[in-house]
Amino acid sequence: MKKVSEPTIGRLSVYLRLLNKLEAEGHETVSSEELAKRSATTAAQVRKDLSLFGTFGKRGLGYSVGELVERLRSILGLGREWRVALVGAGRIGSALFGYENFRQQGFFIEAVFDSDAAKVGQRWNGLIVRPASELEDVLREELIDIAVIAVPAAAAQELVDRIVRAGVRGILNFAPTSLDVPEDVALKNVDMALEMEGISYALANRKTASESGGKENGGG
Amino acid sequence: MKKVSEPTIGRLSVYLRLLNKLEAEGHETVSSEELAKRSATTAAQVRKDLSLFGTFGKRGLGYSVGELVERLRSILGLGREWRVALVGAGRIGSALFGYENFRQQGFFIEAVFDSDAAKVGQRWNGLIVRPASELEDVLREELIDIAVIAVPAAAAQELVDRIVRAGVRGILNFAPTSLDVPEDVALKNVDMALEMEGISYALANRKTASESGGKENGGG
Repeated sequence: MKKVSEPTIGRLSVYLRLLNKLEAEGHETVSSEELAKRSATTAAQVRKDLSLFGTFGKRGLGYSVGELVERLRSILGLGREWRVALVGAGRIGSALFGYENFRQQGFFIEAVFDSDAAKVGQRWNGLIVRPASELEDVLREELIDIAVIAVPAAAAQELVDRIVRAGVRGILNFAPTSLDVPEDVALKNVDMALEMEGISYALANRKTASESGGKENGGG
Repeated sequence: MKKVSEPTIGRLSVYLRLLNKLEAEGHETVSSEELAKRSATTAAQVRKDLSLFGTFGKRGLGYSVGELVERLRSILGLGREWRVALVGAGRIGSALFGYENFRQQGFFIEAVFDSDAAKVGQRWNGLIVRPASELEDVLREELIDIAVIAVPAAAAQELVDRIVRAGVRGILNFAPTSLDVPEDVALKNVDMALEMEGISYALANRKTASESGGKENGGG
């Protein structure tokens, strides 16, 4: 299972969300057309994505919702518990503790770190905040799989270097900065302001286009 | 300025972050190679992306950092203030109030709504929480450009329908569900569990690949 692109993985996650909803509503089968319609893609794309993993619908019947849920959960690595460490006991971390879907998908926050002496040793969302100085020891003791970086941009790279050296191979980065990690580390960035810029771009250029008549461009 | 793809816009935002950093460090010029290296793309891609907007570097000198910052800010609609309403006074909303870059990029949260009677009327992150019943009135009075949806999945679509009817044309959705909006509404989804699934996929399949020898696939 090599060379599956990030957009493909993203679509598989979207299909899984839709299928969970369909299953809860009592649906037993779903067509590629319906999956496509609800996830802003094409039926051909759905069939191509799922065939990559050896999953095929039956002509006229579509896919079995239950089977597809199990298959996608397994492909996405959701058949097990992932042990997560949160680096930075701030508002973003707090949001993750409260996030629907997080525990449900098997992501369990097992350790929290902060460099603020006022927070260290305090109970925070049910866990004791550990000092950053104990990072390596706790990551190893708690068998952490994935670290969530929720610290200011300036502090992020140094912490990530230590986390990687401690053997963690998955990093979710909320710090608004680009991080260097070795090739064998899975890194994903979540930048809320960046998503907002996608919206401001659309709004700003909609207005410009209607005022100026809009110049054609080939697109990236 | 039509048909610029979402990945292109995403890369422009990433370039802008790097340029802000370079500017703060006192750099006056930057090459497409350096921008590419720091944003995990190629120099050819950088040049292609920037040429879409009529911006060209000088051979041997590269791009002027200051000019490029101004140009990208303008393209991304960051040359102005965007008035944002937060729908759902919970942990995610609170994280947005504390997020570096949010105000800095011109996104100002001007109204907060919640359906919980215990929260309505209370001061929360400096704003008074309004009841969901006042949604349409307040969105219009406050000239809101963008709504941030931070409510449970089940409540999201109905609220979004009302927000769109009230004239808001930009929506950032944190509810883990797919939303239907008219074509002229810019919608972006942020699903933190989905980003985590990108990591769990990579970790799960790395192990599988080393155990099984890995089956070749064409990729999405």
